[in-house]
This record gives sequence, C-alpha cells and structure tokens, in this order.
Amino acid sequence: MFAKDLQRITVLGAGSWGTAFAKVLGDAGRDVTIWARRESVAAEIAQEHTNGSYLPDVKLPSRITATADPAAALDGAQAVVLAVPSQSLRANLSAWKGLLSPDSVLVSLAKGVELGTLKRMSQVIAEIAEVPDGQIVVVSGPNLAREIAQGQPSAAVVACSDHERAVAVQRASFNSYFRPYTNTDVVGCELGGACKNVIALSCGMAAGLGLGTNTMATLITRGLAEMARLGTKLGADPLTFAGLAGVGDLVATCSSPLSRNRTFGERLGRGETLEQAQLAAGGQVAEGVKSCTSIRELAMSLGVDMPITDAMHRVCHEGVDPRKAGAELLGRSQKHEWS
Amino acid sequence: MFAKDLQRITVLGAGSWGTAFAKVLGDAGRDVTIWARRESVAAEIAQEHTNGSYLPDVKLPSRITATADPAAALDGAQAVVLAVPSQSLRANLSAWKGLLSPDSVLVSLAKGVELGTLKRMSQVIAEIAEVPDGQIVVVSGPNLAREIAQGQPSAAVVACSDHERAVAVQRASFNSYFRPYTNTDVVGCELGGACKNVIALSCGMAAGLGLGTNTMATLITRGLAEMARLGTKLGADPLTFAGLAGVGDLVATCSSPLSRNRTFGERLGRGETLEQAQLAAGGQVAEGVKSCTSIRELAMSLGVDMPITDAMHRVCHEGVDPRKAGAELLGRSQKHEWS
Repeated sequence: MFAKDLQRITVLGAGSWGTAFAKVLGDAGRDVTIWARRESVAAEIAQEHTNGSYLPDVKLPSRITATADPAAALDGAQAVVLAVPSQSLRANLSAWKGLLSPDSVLVSLAKGVELGTLKRMSQVIAEIAEVPDGQIVVVSGPNLAREIAQGQPSAAVVACSDHERAVAVQRASFNSYFRPYTNTDVVGCELGGACKNVIALSCGMAAGLGLGTNTMATLITRGLAEMARLGTKLGADPLTFAGLAGVGDLVATCSSPLSRNRTFGERLGRGETLEQAQLAAGGQVAEGVKSCTSIRELAMSLGVDMPITDAMHRVCHEGVDPRKAGAELLGRSQKHEWS
Repeated sequence: MFAKDLQRITVLGAGSWGTAFAKVLGDAGRDVTIWARRESVAAEIAQEHTNGSYLPDVKLPSRITATADPAAALDGAQAVVLAVPSQSLRANLSAWKGLLSPDSVLVSLAKGVELGTLKRMSQVIAEIAEVPDGQIVVVSGPNLAREIAQGQPSAAVVACSDHERAVAVQRASFNSYFRPYTNTDVVGCELGGACKNVIALSCGMAAGLGLGTNTMATLITRGLAEMARLGTKLGADPLTFAGLAGVGDLVATCSSPLSRNRTFGERLGRGETLEQAQLAAGGQVAEGVKSCTSIRELAMSLGVDMPITDAMHRVCHEGVDPRKAGAELLGRSQKHEWS
C-alpha cells in the first residue's frame, strides 16, 4: 500500500524545473530532499537555500535539504521525483534502482521520447524500476520553472493511470500558487510535453528568420494538430491536447523568451550552426534537437504525418537550410484546413 | 449565378485589417476599390498608395483605388468585403444595402457578437442584405494586419456554407504570402473570432497585474475551452477551435503586443479605469470590452459556463477590481481538468 499522504519526498535532479518543483512541494508543507549531481550545488541549496546557477534570485524554503549522495537522498522517500534530462533518465535510474523503496510513487518531470527505443519517459521508468504503470505519475502543463519559483500562479496536470496516486501527488503539490488538476491520460500528457519542445524549436527558428506572430501562431496550431495525430494513434485522449498539458504547455514554451528550445531555434534561424548554438547554450543541446529525431521515427513507424517535426529533424541533423525548410512547410499543397 | 473568378472587389472600411486585406487581394491580381469614411484617407490611398494612420510604412499596390463615395465604390463589385467594426456593421450595411448587386459575394472581416440581438456578424449581414447564408463568406485566422501588410507569410481560413463561394474567395486572396484554407463551419470561425478578443483582454489584464507566461498560457487554454463549449452548443464543429480560426487566431491575438484588446486589458490590469484606457486608445474601446457583454448574454441564454468572459464583463462593466476577478478565476474549485 502506498502512502496517501506523501510527506517525505525526494527530488532527483537540481536543474531549474527540479528545484522549482521542490520549492512547490516545500511550500505545500512537505519534507523535501534534493539530490544534486554536483556537491557544490547540494551544499548551496542545503546551506544558503538558493540554487544560483539555475534559479537566480529565488529563496528556497528552509525545510528543503540537499545532498549529492543518492542513497542519503532516497532514504525513506515516499515519493521520488525524477527531474533529470530525458535522454539520461535510463542511465541515472539504473544506478538509483537499488535505492528505491518498492512502493514509492515515482513522479516524472522529464519530457521527451528516448532515442533508439522510442519510449516515453514513463515507459523507461516502468522498465528500469520494474514498477507497474499505476505507480508512475507524470506532471505537465504551462510550467515555466522560473515563474513558478517566483510564486506566480500556475496550473498543472498530474497524470496517472491510478487516479488515487494522481490525487496523492496533487495534494502533495497543491499550494497558494500551484494548482494541479488530475488526469488519467498519461500517454497524451507525455507526448504533449515531448512534442512541444520540437514546436518551440520551430517557433524560435521562425523568429530567427525574422517572421512574426502570425507565423508563430500558425506553427503552434499546426504543431498541436500533428502532436494530436501522433497521440491519438498511440491511444491518447484527443481532449488532452486541448488542455493544459497540450495547448497550455505548448503556448507557454513557444511564446516565452525563457524557453531554451525557443532560444536555441532562434540561433539556428539566424544562421548559426548546431555547434555554435550549442556553445552559446553552455554546451547543452536543446531537448527538441534530440526529440525531433525520436518523435519523427516514432511517427514514421506508425504512418503518422508530422511535417514540422520532420522539418526540424532535417534542419538539425541533415544540414537543410532553415529558410528552405520553412518555404517547404509553407508550400505544402492543401485546400481544406483538415484535408 | 455568382462570378467564380472574383476580379472586381470592393473593400468597405479602411482600418488596418480592411486595408491589409485589400493589399492581399491586390497582390493576388484583383482590381480593388477601398471605401473610406474620411475623404482624406480615400485621397491618400488613391494618390499616395499609403494609409499612414493605420498602416504606417506600408506601400499599397498601385492597382488599389479608393473613394469616400459608397455608390462609386460598389459599382460593378463582384465581391464586397465588409471591414467595419462589428457594432456598427448593421447601421453601415443598412445604408449601403441599395447599392449592393444582388448576387455579389459578401465577405465579412468583422469579429464580434452584436449587442442586444446577440447575433453573429454573418447573421446580421444575412438579415440586412437579405441574402442566403451561402452568399456570405467569413475570413478568420492568425492574421495580425500589420504583419500581413508587410508581406509576412500567413495562413487564414475562408469559411462559407457554400463550398464553391469559399473557393472563389480563396482564389481571389491567394498570393505569395497569404495562404487561405477553406472551411464550411461559419459558426465556429465567427465565434472563435469574437471570443478571442475577450480572452486577449484577459491576457492583457493578467500582464498588467504583473503575471507571466504561465498565466497567459492558462488563460488561452481555458479560454479555448470556454469558446469551444459555446460554439459546439450553437452547432459549430469542435475541430474548428483546434484550427487556425480557433487556437491560431487566439494565440496570435493574445501574444502580440500589436493587439488592441491585449493592450487595452493591460491598462485595466495596471489600474486604469475604462475611461482612461479608452482615452489612451484614441477614444476607442477595444472590441472585447463590448463583446464580453454580448457573448456572456449569449452563453447565459444557452446555459453555457464561460468564467473568463464573465470575469471580463464584471471588470469592464460592473466595477470589479481586476485583482479580485483574477483571484476568483484561480480559486474555482476543480479537481479533474475536464470535470
């Protein structure tokens, strides 16, 4: 039996969203331990109650502790929040597996589709941690980490095939500024979260090419249509894409200057190479750059048409000029909006 | 029989969208006459090929002519584009009625629901011009006038219950930067266009209160849900709201700093009165300020819940403080996203 009142929660990963979500949990009265890969980050969080490299000017609740030792971090955790990059989730979780309590709720903040296996993050978690689907909860929605860390009111979706576990995480994260809604459509929420990074990349690219709001709104609209096509093919509820984890997350990521994917796309649109954009982003490649390849493969394996995702893959990995990819997208022959 | 090849087109109204759409038609090789209420604007368009008060720095095609005489403007028109504010469409069209050729296609660019009658614009046109629905075409989509006038690539929806007439307007407006898709869901396209002004007002208000992108994305998501509820109740296709005339138009209007409704809402959010915001907007009240009242009435008459529209009405017309209205919206008790 799992604990319905999740009091002792561990967050694995001290990036901006992991730290912001730890703050959400702390502000909801939970006892939170953050595991950080770097000793210096763990020490800063534990002693100064700040995480300057990821969330400058944000004071964390003093009830949040931190450590770089995963065993110490996971000791006694009733819920474990996985807040590491999607492409390294498998390796990280494999290393942590022996430290997890068998009945702890596993909460995924990672958004992506794994390269190679084409699995969603909850599938990777189920496989590595060897837990049933109903033990894995996905959090998604229009959740720019910095705004949430500043205490700005935000709505989110907490999805789990087991409604009771979704409710437990909802209760554990509900506070004066964070408003989680439950949902049972894990597939839809995860695909929305993964695909939006690719569409945000395309919006940034359009902006880098000097295009305006009409183009951005069109990319968001058609991007929403292509992610819904993929999702429904995989069994997701189409309604999910009309909600906070679909259009909500998509709009937030595509329109915010804080979005890494959008910024990365902008650099590509201005003519920088992948390497130059990566260098400017502190050596990191944006999530959408990897996801466009795995999502495209997944779509191709199912016979689903995803023209924007395809265009992003060709720009990022086949050397196609952004201007040419954009012109091709615009030139697609279509007469009726939905034909 | 109507002309399938609409060559001679008159645009009634020389505001920013009327003028930009006239440019679209001119760039598509059509012979366009603009009617402007003010002699000086008509003369400037006819002689200088500019409309400096609405579209500064834009050069219009020399094939566009203009006049302040409606009879001269309408002489021989195969299609008539109605580009006047929604609340004055009835009065204007009543005056022009005798000048319309009985088989001309009537194209509506007006977005709103008429105060008092609660009619959509195409319903007002059908009533006053005494033409069947199939003769009226609605143009909508993510179409910020200034960007289109600058020749930025944009997609649009051309909706008519008579598919052939939609195709005729599609052909007449298709050019290198304007890409119209046909649709037969007039009700959905019109409601999307009308409701989005109210949601843009709310997004502006949130920004004026200092709230960020997460809040804006949440308002867009929940706004889309409430306009879809109203639309489907009135017989619209739910898919329309997932398309260019739904989420596309909504995202463009809500996220652009060029949007009048958004700007107006921002002023209210910063604490200005309706009168102060109106003064700052050159004496004009934003469309959403009027539409929130008529849309709210329409929704109430049908038993449809539209909390954002209701909040905007109470702020604009019942003196409720924007901060209080926002807190109430956030405080609505909800557990599951769609319950």
